Amino acid sequence: MDDFPAVVELNVGGTPYATALSTLRSEDGSWLQEIFGGSASGCPRDAQGRFFIDRDGTLFRYVLDYLREPAKFEMPTDFPERMRLRKEAEFYRLGGMVEAVTKDPGTITIGYRGSFQFGRDGLADVKFRKITRLLVCGRVAICREVFGDTLNESRDPDHGGPDRYTARFFLKHVFIEQAFDLLQERGFRCVGSCGSGTAGSITENLKPGVDSEENRWNHYNEFVFVRD
Amino acid sequence: MDDFPAVVELNVGGTPYATALSTLRSEDGSWLQEIFGGSASGCPRDAQGRFFIDRDGTLFRYVLDYLREPAKFEMPTDFPERMRLRKEAEFYRLGGMVEAVTKDPGTITIGYRGSFQFGRDGLADVKFRKITRLLVCGRVAICREVFGDTLNESRDPDHGGPDRYTARFFLKHVFIEQAFDLLQERGFRCVGSCGSGTAGSITENLKPGVDSEENRWNHYNEFVFVRD
Amino acid sequence: MDDFPAVVELNVGGTPYATALSTLRSEDGSWLQEIFGGSASGCPRDAQGRFFIDRDGTLFRYVLDYLREPAKFEMPTDFPERMRLRKEAEFYRLGGMVEAVTKDPGTITIGYRGSFQFGRDGLADVKFRKITRLLVCGRVAICREVFGDTLNESRDPDHGGPDRYTARFFLKHVFIEQAFDLLQERGFRCVGSCGSGTAGSITENLKPGVDSEENRWNHYNEFVFVRD
Amino acid sequence: MDDFPAVVELNVGGTPYATALSTLRSEDGSWLQEIFGGSASGCPRDAQGRFFIDRDGTLFRYVLDYLREPAKFEMPTDFPERMRLRKEAEFYRLGGMVEAVTKDPGTITIGYRGSFQFGRDGLADVKFRKITRLLVCGRVAICREVFGDTLNESRDPDHGGPDRYTARFFLKHVFIEQAFDLLQERGFRCVGSCGSGTAGSITENLKPGVDSEENRWNHYNEFVFVRD
Amino acid sequence: MDDFPAVVELNVGGTPYATALSTLRSEDGSWLQEIFGGSASGCPRDAQGRFFIDRDGTLFRYVLDYLREPAKFEMPTDFPERMRLRKEAEFYRLGGMVEAVTKDPGTITIGYRGSFQFGRDGLADVKFRKITRLLVCGRVAICREVFGDTLNESRDPDHGGPDRYTARFFLKHVFIEQAFDLLQERGFRCVGSCGSGTAGSITENLKPGVDSEENRWNHYNEFVFVRD
Repeated sequence: MDDFPAVVELNVGGTPYATALSTLRSEDGSWLQEIFGGSASGCPRDAQGRFFIDRDGTLFRYVLDYLREPAKFEMPTDFPERMRLRKEAEFYRLGGMVEAVTKDPGTITIGYRGSFQFGRDGLADVKFRKITRLLVCGRVAICREVFGDTLNESRDPDHGGPDRYTARFFLKHVFIEQAFDLLQERGFRCVGSCGSGTAGSITENLKPGVDSEENRWNHYNEFVFVRD
Repeated sequence: MDDFPAVVELNVGGTPYATALSTLRSEDGSWLQEIFGGSASGCPRDAQGRFFIDRDGTLFRYVLDYLREPAKFEMPTDFPERMRLRKEAEFYRLGGMVEAVTKDPGTITIGYRGSFQFGRDGLADVKFRKITRLLVCGRVAICREVFGDTLNESRDPDHGGPDRYTARFFLKHVFIEQAFDLLQERGFRCVGSCGSGTAGSITENLKPGVDSEENRWNHYNEFVFVRD
Repeated sequence: MDDFPAVVELNVGGTPYATALSTLRSEDGSWLQEIFGGSASGCPRDAQGRFFIDRDGTLFRYVLDYLREPAKFEMPTDFPERMRLRKEAEFYRLGGMVEAVTKDPGTITIGYRGSFQFGRDGLADVKFRKITRLLVCGRVAICREVFGDTLNESRDPDHGGPDRYTARFFLKHVFIEQAFDLLQERGFRCVGSCGSGTAGSITENLKPGVDSEENRWNHYNEFVFVRD
Repeated sequence: MDDFPAVVELNVGGTPYATALSTLRSEDGSWLQEIFGGSASGCPRDAQGRFFIDRDGTLFRYVLDYLREPAKFEMPTDFPERMRLRKEAEFYRLGGMVEAVTKDPGTITIGYRGSFQFGRDGLADVKFRKITRLLVCGRVAICREVFGDTLNESRDPDHGGPDRYTARFFLKHVFIEQAFDLLQERGFRCVGSCGSGTAGSITENLKPGVDSEENRWNHYNEFVFVRD
Repeated sequence: MDDFPAVVELNVGGTPYATALSTLRSEDGSWLQEIFGGSASGCPRDAQGRFFIDRDGTLFRYVLDYLREPAKFEMPTDFPERMRLRKEAEFYRLGGMVEAVTKDPGTITIGYRGSFQFGRDGLADVKFRKITRLLVCGRVAICREVFGDTLNESRDPDHGGPDRYTARFFLKHVFIEQAFDLLQERGFRCVGSCGSGTAGSITENLKPGVDSEENRWNHYNEFVFVRD
């Protein structure tokens, strides 16, 4: 009954593929296991005798890749056919793959009010940037997904569901690069950035000496990140 | 008379495809149903006996995809051949597909005047961003398509047609991320962003205390979104 | 003498294509009409008997597309092989296609001085953006091509040739989105954007009341568009 | 002895190509002339009898294109495989092609201090941008390559080698679009742009009348261009 | 025993490849050497007699490229399948290739406080940019990898491990183009840029004459670079 060859040649929507029979049968409950787990006689073939699958030929490449090493599956970066691939994973009933290609799209904004550290003595020294807080704005669920433990939610007054938007999260550290690295790891990319300085210095409330220079260099920089 | 095989092998402009006959016949009124609904004897073939279609071979992949699951059709993100695909959908008389690939191109600008919330007591606290209004500018029809119920049109004095441009729409909420998420969902992407602060503080009109700091941090950020 | 088959199979630089003989003969004066208009016996063939053309195999796809529906020809958006395709169109002597793929590359800058409309009564109202003029800078010929009737050239003192550069054009309207839509239609995309505010308010020349706030929010935003 | 067919079918690393024998022999001193200039009997073939070349199959497309019309060779815009193609051109000993695909990577920054022209009479007129100088910064060699005659080097005190960096070049004209067009022609693209205004007006040194407005609108815009 | 042909035809997951047997055997300890170093009789084949490998067919192109000239291996720029290629290199046990495709992802920010050089005599001269320091922020390990000897770490108080983040590195030179060139060489690209001016001039601490203009033009520009 088990009359499939060990190397199965396929015609997937016109594109030729070849894989081991064991690869096709590897995922329990999948469409491919169902089709190739039984007898070859019921399977449609093309004129050259290759087994025929009436699905997209290009994306099947990733389906095979997933079956060969499910735990190591990697999508291409910024993959324009991600949503189409998800549809294929669903058709083939590959739960792990559906999960791997599913990402919650959305926008996260990182803003910070910054200046520079000036010494009291006015030494001609290096002035490094000084960031008070890294603000995080966006839908609650994806902010939590990206920043996890580094997210400070203590000042968000609306303890609502994960689908509301917030502008009252901030991070427990002040390295924008650390925040950007996390965003990158989760598939976000920077699509916009805005800087602005402040208007005329407030002189009345300043602490003596050190703060007047710092005050002049105040600026607000805002970075918009998006995941498709 | 019905002499097409169950698995139809095609030569579409030189590119090989294979699909089920039932897929080719699935859409009523389509060119493919017309050709493959009748007798195979009248169909041109190539030297290998594959049925020949004198159309672009690369884009036919998406035509098949549409026919297999019309309701789930997905184009690739930022698809550079979208207008070419539309031409194919028109040739094959696939109304649902024409609709799915047709998008109104255009520009929408989101601008906001923002600052930060400062407490009266001068506590060294987190200052969150404060946005008064999210302004929406662009052609009326696409602003409405994108923002729907979240769009406030009450201050637009020119109640003209959808093809005029307006700079007097704003949103009913003040989360730029929510606005950007909607723009992303409708296929827009951010192509430019500008920030600017304000000139010397106006001191005469200020309310006491709390507002002077807020006043200094005023800025206008503007984001340009485009759909190709 | 006319011994070409109705479906012609081609080997274009190694890539297989198939098309109707009538498609190959459709454009008067073209190289393909010359070759396929005569007798097949003089035509070089590959080992499989396909007619051989010693040109790029990938780009021939677009040549066929043009021949099938010249009036509907569409290039992919931001096509990286546009200049290469033009070379093919020239080789095949397809005048209409050469024209369709030829675009004048260049840069256009849109700048505006803007602020917001403030009411005299200080109502806590929505302030919309206020743009005095949309400035257009770039080479004269492409500025005219893009903006046509919406371009105001009245203040350009150098009525020279289309190849000089100007910074003295402006538009007849003040919607940046309308300008950006026209740029997009003509194949330009935004590659840079800069914003800046103004320095300390000039108080002496101000009209009473309404203008002081407007004055503070003055900014100059500049958008650079490029066509490859 | 000369037993190659007029149409040579090739298997280049698995990808099929076909070209005229005369094309393969066209470049003196090249690897292909050496191989295909002699007898076919010594040439390795694949199982289908095609002549075998153990090199990348995808990039060979551009090699053939170069051989067909060396003087018209065009790479795709922003070609991600440029460095890989160069390696192929070197292997095949195609000097002209190596030159055509070799570009010196690097960064050039264009900065300008600008404002607007204001009339003395305060007419509600169009104010055009006013740019004093276009500054050019970067490695000397690529600045010269891009701007040639339009570059003013008179103020660069370090007349060193082309590999040092300079921030003291400027252009002989003040059209940023003309500078950007040259950068585009030489394969650079804009990757960043920053704008900033100036701090509180200096009133003491101003010339009467006309300059105070101009002074307020001073800004510095900076554009970073990169060639990969 | 050694019955492999000199030109080996492969079916890698459905994609045909051809290469010299010596190429497949060239890397000691590799999977391919193991498979093709022995007898051909134990190797799975497809229906056309090609040797079958159950791996991704598209990426195998780069594997062959590596084997042909390991020392010259080049990945495409901004390669979206880099992580997938790494997985292949690991499967084939090609240590040098794993290393070549492995890059530490991350973010580096370059910021600078700048102004212009003004002469004391107020001559209408060219003012060049003046940059005090180029600040480097990011994870310590990748800052060191990119900037090497040009990095000044003397002011970083936390001499911790390479995985912490720092905002206290700066460069030994002040050419942003030199910094950007190094970032480009190491595979980083600019994803965001912010500029801001300063608030009202501090007049009390200024040195006489020359500095007041310079003071007004102070700005902070910040560039964010990312490597995927």
